[in-house]
Amino acid sequence: MRLRNKPGAKAKLQAFPQYVLQHPEQYKGKWHAVFEQQQPLHIEIGTGKGKFIIGMAEANPHINYIGIERQESVIVSALDRLVALELPNVKLLHIDGMDLKNYFKKDDVDRIYLNFSDPWPKKRHEKRRLTHHSFLSLYKDILIDKGCIHFKTDNQQLFEYSLMSFSAYGLLLTEISLDLHRSSFEGNIMTEYEEKFSQKGHRIYRCEVQYS
Amino acid sequence: MRLRNKPGAKAKLQAFPQYVLQHPEQYKGKWHAVFEQQQPLHIEIGTGKGKFIIGMAEANPHINYIGIERQESVIVSALDRLVALELPNVKLLHIDGMDLKNYFKKDDVDRIYLNFSDPWPKKRHEKRRLTHHSFLSLYKDILIDKGCIHFKTDNQQLFEYSLMSFSAYGLLLTEISLDLHRSSFEGNIMTEYEEKFSQKGHRIYRCEVQYS
Repeated sequence: MRLRNKPGAKAKLQAFPQYVLQHPEQYKGKWHAVFEQQQPLHIEIGTGKGKFIIGMAEANPHINYIGIERQESVIVSALDRLVALELPNVKLLHIDGMDLKNYFKKDDVDRIYLNFSDPWPKKRHEKRRLTHHSFLSLYKDILIDKGCIHFKTDNQQLFEYSLMSFSAYGLLLTEISLDLHRSSFEGNIMTEYEEKFSQKGHRIYRCEVQYS
Repeated sequence: MRLRNKPGAKAKLQAFPQYVLQHPEQYKGKWHAVFEQQQPLHIEIGTGKGKFIIGMAEANPHINYIGIERQESVIVSALDRLVALELPNVKLLHIDGMDLKNYFKKDDVDRIYLNFSDPWPKKRHEKRRLTHHSFLSLYKDILIDKGCIHFKTDNQQLFEYSLMSFSAYGLLLTEISLDLHRSSFEGNIMTEYEEKFSQKGHRIYRCEVQYS
């Protein structure tokens, strides 16, 4: 998705360092220093306008959250939402998910959320899909042992691809729903994208996988 | 499904021993003796009226097939179909899938088909589902190394359950379609049930998994 630049976005991100962490590489291995409470850390890669991660933080005060987004013009909306709510247990990082290992080390993260990631449908772009084995390997290097990925998408082909990728990597499939909004799953927090596309009748696919 | 008895079914099954094998335990470990050609053996558990397995046998003369069905009143329709076509590479067994190990030993079978198996939706009937781990263990004992299961169903809950069961057993997911009839999959042979329910607009789910 090509995005329009938002004038003043960069300055705004810098104006709230308590929410959009500056020089986050300094926290590698010591994320507990960033939050008021020492509790599990869940991160979302591709957090967009932040509806999901901030909703999760509101609903689960006993978990710390980090939303990661590389698009300046989008993360600034997440910041607006966060400023209004003043939650202590969620931070934003304006970084590229490719560079996770610059900011996190083994055991820093308890769970990773991937929501409506770019499907990169062309075969030649397979390596860019956030469930490609090179990313699964990257996640392993920052998660705890038996750490989890929670993944949802409305893109059938991406979901099929991801299930095979998880299997080939040896991850254990612990939960799956092939029609989330008509399932018994409780506590779902919708992303902006999910709200829009489920209203159009798209099915939402969701699964949870665990490293061994 | 409770089925009506068909008068004369038993006698008919016995009248065609070249198609419905009698005393099949005698072929354990020597199934090659049953067929004209020595070639891979694929079996279907719950073959119903035989449309799938007989269609596969017609389309793939280089493969031997066995359709297994415990319901007398159903397998007799498969026999009718087979008598009309006189195919050399497909046989029927009127046995219970639970007893597979009485009839097959390790390496006898190259591939297992499970099509539209009874979903047994109640949790207390989980053990009866043909993708329960106890069945996966049974299949392992009759398949070649790296043997495969090809599974399709229109039952979303059974498919979800089965994907988790395959994963927990350590099977590799090599193919998946979450909407078979709107996918690029070629050479699909429909079962009677599949024809009926896909006409009603039900999605058909399909996957292939492989033992390590």
